[in-house]
Amino acid sequence: MFSKIELSTHQNAELVDITSQVQKKVSQSEISDGICVVFVPHTTAGVTINENADPDVVQDILMMLDKKIPTNDPGYRHSEGNSAAHIKASLIGSSVSVIVENGKLQLGTWQGIYFCEFDGPRKREIWIKFL
Amino acid sequence: MFSKIELSTHQNAELVDITSQVQKKVSQSEISDGICVVFVPHTTAGVTINENADPDVVQDILMMLDKKIPTNDPGYRHSEGNSAAHIKASLIGSSVSVIVENGKLQLGTWQGIYFCEFDGPRKREIWIKFL
Amino acid sequence: MFSKIELSTHQNAELVDITSQVQKKVSQSEISDGICVVFVPHTTAGVTINENADPDVVQDILMMLDKKIPTNDPGYRHSEGNSAAHIKASLIGSSVSVIVENGKLQLGTWQGIYFCEFDGPRKREIWIKFL
Repeated sequence: MFSKIELSTHQNAELVDITSQVQKKVSQSEISDGICVVFVPHTTAGVTINENADPDVVQDILMMLDKKIPTNDPGYRHSEGNSAAHIKASLIGSSVSVIVENGKLQLGTWQGIYFCEFDGPRKREIWIKFL
Repeated sequence: MFSKIELSTHQNAELVDITSQVQKKVSQSEISDGICVVFVPHTTAGVTINENADPDVVQDILMMLDKKIPTNDPGYRHSEGNSAAHIKASLIGSSVSVIVENGKLQLGTWQGIYFCEFDGPRKREIWIKFL
Repeated sequence: MFSKIELSTHQNAELVDITSQVQKKVSQSEISDGICVVFVPHTTAGVTINENADPDVVQDILMMLDKKIPTNDPGYRHSEGNSAAHIKASLIGSSVSVIVENGKLQLGTWQGIYFCEFDGPRKREIWIKFL
């Protein structure tokens, strides 16, 4: 079985720190050692690990992604207007793998797990599997 | 043991939907619950998860990657002329991890698994491991 | 338990081939078949798989990343001056998963595992878990 986290995003583009929610699911499971796979079942969102201290870092990530992968481009063919969100999703990736030891996610001092919304606001899900 | 899928690509750059081929390998294995790791053993190709409905989405991904990581750049030193393909491979990544439940790949409604050819056409392999 | 590799980088940006060090940890473990997860516990570094033959390839990756994600941008808010390194870390990713068979990492002929330093030189760690 796998766990699900439900999430509502509030911005068009937003990085949401989900570390404590993922840790809660790890704590609820019976597995103390292994790997936790965090998977995003959406095609205009992703998941990444980055700095948990200064919120300016995630703003800078969103700003630069937006500058490099513009919302509007004459070459886009997809008619929904969210091609940039699909491209960002593939660049960032749909899953992260984190080591679990004694029931605790093993992350570096400055690392947090972030859900990456690129086409919100929306209701989203995050799927979590322990191995 | 791990499974292999053999694939011939037909374009220089192409995203090939391999979801049903990966599902077939999952069905042939004896594992019903776990994680399926899809790994690409090439350095000018990758694997990603993105929209399986409108084929314009994968065209937009290829178009924008090509625009941002140009085939020719005065700074490239690698003499084979495919530096852009190597760079795209590292940006997209060499593997994806997908949850398996009751012998079925667990993907979002709009998600498909795509082999990403960046330096074809070529014969390629995809390696699959179940955990 | 998981293994750790300690590493000192010598450049501000550098791709360090860690394949043989990861293989050594695989050989020291008792697991012969499975997956090896290589995880970087830093937010200005990453890990990728790319060509192990011509060193110009990794130089081209670093050059193009630097060109596309500039060190200085008027939009950056993070005061430490290393926003570009954080962005590159999320684009490249914090982990890779490699199949292990008979105690050997299964990589394509031209593939090597690279630690990606984007804000060095520094002392760094790489964490390795076998499943």
